[in-house]
Amino acid sequence: MRYYAGPVARLIDELARLPGIGNKTAQRLAFHLLNAPPEAAHNLARAVTEARDSVRFCKICANLTDSEVCQICADPGRDQTQICVVGEPKDLVAMEKTRGYKGVYHVLQGVLSPLNGVDADSLTIRQLLARLEGGRVREVILATNPNVEGDATALYLARLIKPLGVKVTRIAHGLPVGAHLEYADEMTLAKALEGRREV
Amino acid sequence: MRYYAGPVARLIDELARLPGIGNKTAQRLAFHLLNAPPEAAHNLARAVTEARDSVRFCKICANLTDSEVCQICADPGRDQTQICVVGEPKDLVAMEKTRGYKGVYHVLQGVLSPLNGVDADSLTIRQLLARLEGGRVREVILATNPNVEGDATALYLARLIKPLGVKVTRIAHGLPVGAHLEYADEMTLAKALEGRREV
Repeated sequence: MRYYAGPVARLIDELARLPGIGNKTAQRLAFHLLNAPPEAAHNLARAVTEARDSVRFCKICANLTDSEVCQICADPGRDQTQICVVGEPKDLVAMEKTRGYKGVYHVLQGVLSPLNGVDADSLTIRQLLARLEGGRVREVILATNPNVEGDATALYLARLIKPLGVKVTRIAHGLPVGAHLEYADEMTLAKALEGRREV
Repeated sequence: MRYYAGPVARLIDELARLPGIGNKTAQRLAFHLLNAPPEAAHNLARAVTEARDSVRFCKICANLTDSEVCQICADPGRDQTQICVVGEPKDLVAMEKTRGYKGVYHVLQGVLSPLNGVDADSLTIRQLLARLEGGRVREVILATNPNVEGDATALYLARLIKPLGVKVTRIAHGLPVGAHLEYADEMTLAKALEGRREV
């Protein structure tokens, strides 16, 4: 039984396909779009189409870009001898927001996860190793997430890269800024102790 | 500072304009759309555009429709002498899902809410009164939400319609099916007692 007019039902269905959007939320979003000025709906539709059609992966670092090479790889002000390896484009954005890093990136497009069928060949590891040929790269910073899969991926990459004579580092584990020792989990606290530095 | 390529940033911005969608969720939805097959993104964009361009209000009952008159008003099997008045199209859908109602509807497009600037003229009350002319309508069922604004709107409509000699009813307040008396609020329990019926 169809309760809504065809186009309304189709809009609700399409919105409900998005991750984390249930049927009630899809309905609410659909009514919002139907009640908003026509431009709002058209802008959204255009943004979706344009992004899907124009965005691809940077042929150097696999970041998202709308040209051949992403804006970071194309920037002559970035240090091409330092590569920060991240899992996803959003991790790259998180690093960029620190404004503390002036090197370039490599986006793996995931992390090793054998249970989910993600092995080394589904990541951009081959492209990363190709970038290390020629000996221009001085340091690879492994900035995958500090969880089981991210750590395993970092370890795997370290074993591949070290024999090439390139310095490999891993971002530090420790207490977040503003945290309380009292509420820190034991793993984090142990890592913070282990990673202590002279002041 | 632009962290994402133009089309990606625009997509995230447009998604974040939707109600209840924050920046992180917009980012997650954008990456989903970029990683999904192109058809998924195109179908969503098309559904948004088509719905916005083709959907309008039924000229009889103000329900959403993609033709002049909605499928319920156009159905010769529905009892045209009984009009159920609801606030929003989604309330109409909730009533339809009961499969217990065979009359027609009238969608107010909101409820009276002076604090939000919604007065009688911003609702489809004039159109409702016009439908009552000619004396064919036997009963008007007021099915606005059982809250302060819905009750006030129902009372307002009852005062307008009763003098026209049309029977006016209000959907029952009471305990929801499967509820526990223990956990019911006092207002609901009082209404359930007041509305008791002989068995």
